[in-house]
Amino acid sequence: MNYRMILFVISRILLVEGALLLLPMVVALIYGEAVQPFLIPTILLLAVGSVMGLCRPRQTSIYARDGMAVVALAWILLSVFGALPFYLSGSMESFVDCIFETVSGFTTTGATILTEVESLDRSILFWRSFTHWVGGMGVLMFVMAILPMSDGHGMHLLRAEVPGPSVGKLVSRMGDTAKILYSIYLVMTIIEVVLLVAGGMPLFDSLIHSFGSAGTGGFSNRNLSVGAYDNAYFDIVIGVFMLLFGVNFNLYYFLLVRRFRDVFHSEELRVYLGIVAVAVLCIAINILHLYDSFAESLRYAFFQVSSIITTTGYATTDFNLWPTFSKTVLVVLMFIGASAGSTAGGIKVARLVILGKASLSDMRKMLHPNAISTVRFEGKPLGEKNVRSVHLFLTVYLLVFALSCLLVSLDEFDLVTTFTAVTTCINNVGPGLEMVGPMGNFSAFSAASKLLLSFDMLVGRLEIFPMLLLFAPSIWKRKLPAKRPQPQGPAGL
Amino acid sequence: MNYRMILFVISRILLVEGALLLLPMVVALIYGEAVQPFLIPTILLLAVGSVMGLCRPRQTSIYARDGMAVVALAWILLSVFGALPFYLSGSMESFVDCIFETVSGFTTTGATILTEVESLDRSILFWRSFTHWVGGMGVLMFVMAILPMSDGHGMHLLRAEVPGPSVGKLVSRMGDTAKILYSIYLVMTIIEVVLLVAGGMPLFDSLIHSFGSAGTGGFSNRNLSVGAYDNAYFDIVIGVFMLLFGVNFNLYYFLLVRRFRDVFHSEELRVYLGIVAVAVLCIAINILHLYDSFAESLRYAFFQVSSIITTTGYATTDFNLWPTFSKTVLVVLMFIGASAGSTAGGIKVARLVILGKASLSDMRKMLHPNAISTVRFEGKPLGEKNVRSVHLFLTVYLLVFALSCLLVSLDEFDLVTTFTAVTTCINNVGPGLEMVGPMGNFSAFSAASKLLLSFDMLVGRLEIFPMLLLFAPSIWKRKLPAKRPQPQGPAGL
Repeated sequence: MNYRMILFVISRILLVEGALLLLPMVVALIYGEAVQPFLIPTILLLAVGSVMGLCRPRQTSIYARDGMAVVALAWILLSVFGALPFYLSGSMESFVDCIFETVSGFTTTGATILTEVESLDRSILFWRSFTHWVGGMGVLMFVMAILPMSDGHGMHLLRAEVPGPSVGKLVSRMGDTAKILYSIYLVMTIIEVVLLVAGGMPLFDSLIHSFGSAGTGGFSNRNLSVGAYDNAYFDIVIGVFMLLFGVNFNLYYFLLVRRFRDVFHSEELRVYLGIVAVAVLCIAINILHLYDSFAESLRYAFFQVSSIITTTGYATTDFNLWPTFSKTVLVVLMFIGASAGSTAGGIKVARLVILGKASLSDMRKMLHPNAISTVRFEGKPLGEKNVRSVHLFLTVYLLVFALSCLLVSLDEFDLVTTFTAVTTCINNVGPGLEMVGPMGNFSAFSAASKLLLSFDMLVGRLEIFPMLLLFAPSIWKRKLPAKRPQPQGPAGL
Repeated sequence: MNYRMILFVISRILLVEGALLLLPMVVALIYGEAVQPFLIPTILLLAVGSVMGLCRPRQTSIYARDGMAVVALAWILLSVFGALPFYLSGSMESFVDCIFETVSGFTTTGATILTEVESLDRSILFWRSFTHWVGGMGVLMFVMAILPMSDGHGMHLLRAEVPGPSVGKLVSRMGDTAKILYSIYLVMTIIEVVLLVAGGMPLFDSLIHSFGSAGTGGFSNRNLSVGAYDNAYFDIVIGVFMLLFGVNFNLYYFLLVRRFRDVFHSEELRVYLGIVAVAVLCIAINILHLYDSFAESLRYAFFQVSSIITTTGYATTDFNLWPTFSKTVLVVLMFIGASAGSTAGGIKVARLVILGKASLSDMRKMLHPNAISTVRFEGKPLGEKNVRSVHLFLTVYLLVFALSCLLVSLDEFDLVTTFTAVTTCINNVGPGLEMVGPMGNFSAFSAASKLLLSFDMLVGRLEIFPMLLLFAPSIWKRKLPAKRPQPQGPAGL
């Protein structure tokens, strides 16, 4: 473990967070609200970041395990410092609540412990939603986009932060890839803001809901979420943009460089849109009796499906009151999640396609033991290693899930609340069912459960391993293992 | 596909079922009840079996896929014919109900559509519970134990019928292995009957509950299940025997031949007993406030844990009224199940140990990419192939589970009922929670759901693939695939 290098990277991340806190400070100034809740953490972050950054690393190589440790530690520290504004402003009762809310923000979960949000300071609401936007595309990705960093280091950090079974560079330089992705992200967010403002939504609300849908987070500044507007145009704009932010961002880059074939032949995109279409139709028919027309039931079905499969968590209706079939479909969608390389959580469609194809091929082998078949995904043959890593992901994911359910059940809420609270946190969705339904919140859970669910949110956002490996004693050893792994790329940060 | 050979094997199985129906007929004669409900199916089975058996196969080789087809078809036919006594006696309303009850019996699930059992004929209750005993150790195993069959064929049939990731022969001849296992099974059942009768339980009730615990089934002749006796001695005897029948039967053989080392070093046995101990303790503490003393809460915790982890399904109390934590523990135990090579359902402890060890090793590789480690299970190195097959099992199991939940949710019962109904059927447990709790039943489900849940029970009992492969068009092709798989063992049935 290269401690100095890790400290150095984290120092940069803290400095960036300090700078990001300037934005809600501006909002506070505009609306004449208190500035200290942001000023104090900013000063603290700049001080800590500068001191940590003083000690320049002699050796700048980053191994895969260092990359995972950096990402896990960075996200934990970001959340702790990011919770300070909530605590200092007195918006939440305990520091655990502030941590829960901040982790929920950065991991783009959108689960809240607040029973009421409309009375909060605008600057606090802005920071709360802005964490979605920053966490969606990734904090290290942001650091890479704005700071020069060698490709080798960047790749390991990126692998640990970007969701999906495999991460590719779009262009030869890592930093350029990060810049391209963040630019697409920014432009799409701006378009959504413009469309919402054009439809008559106040600018502040438009920003909040664009941050929430871009990061597939789900925090709103209205108690009734997007349902507060009861406006079909907003439903459609936000519904469509949530879906768009659930697409692998590489595809948008391919569109920009006119590689249309790659987009239209994307298996994951097809399956993703197919699942959305089937789910919308099934639910629309199932809830038809609750609404006046098929068009209306289609509108509510589309928004909720788009919100849940992209793990955003906005709601335009209390789907906790829907029939069991529709609720079951939504719970299944929570596990599926959207595309790899998007801002969404969940298992990801790419992994499910890989699992499905590998299983079909294995079952074919049972029938015809000597037949030879190669499994292909997105045009490339799927190696044993890829399949194994997806199986590993699924197994460990289920284990964390089951253990979390057991521990949260100690709070003795009903089974559906317990089960969907864990589901919604580990998949970074936000609302669950019953007590944690779209009109409910997480305030009643014990501090221990809130911390565990915060851990689950981080596990979900960082795709398990960076968080779990923090518990491996060997990751903390300074010495490299006997056989030295190859350092990636030349030094130079 | 060797149709003639498959027909021949199935004809033998039907003849055996015809013979087995003589037992409840004897019970009917003893208690002066109607004999026709058993006589008619017996005549039918003997007729159909004899006609099918007339056409001797020219070639007697059985491939792996043929083995799976035989087992799947045999279990379906056994259930259809086995349902006739229920239908002919008028004990149940519809033939679908009769099918559900019979599948539940043979698969040792123990889920019932009956709202009341105490008014049924004793002969019907006997047949209902006897299916547990036959299904527990396996129908084909029984055929192999009593009919001469070549080892090659037997192995493929056994692999498809015996639960667990890998099946081994105890002795060189397959038929002898089957005889040894069935003898152990019979002797243990008799000991349980004797112990129950010695404690004052009527002989008939003792037989019923011994069949139910031996097969880890769970049908009772009392509406309140084992709780009806409210007798600590019965609780302990049945509780311990359920646990014993959840142990890999190979271990009992090892005990007989004095290979004590193999028994005491069995990893699966240790983990299995460890899980039981932890679960009993956790629940006993959690339910302490509901009972008078810790001894009593321990008694109820032990019985319920033993019943659920072995997927038997007997109850001595309505655990649906227990706190959420205890219910969550029980639901997790339903998925775990007991040991491979036992009569229990569920994922099986052996598979979980393999999943856990493989995952730990994979995660270690993330930290130390060049370190070499071999994963061992029960003293032998775990090959890639074994791990892959367990991963395949888990993936397809989850897929069938999720699809079943979606389809059953169309019945619009609450989420806990829907979810635990599928859980309890696919894991061959019996009771779930809420409507299908230990004091509830499955009568309210639609016919479609009952058939789907019956399919799930068969999927669980035969460990997925035999049932699923029935849907593969290529399994029905008469011609062998281009590359001929190797026939196993010399011909000769």
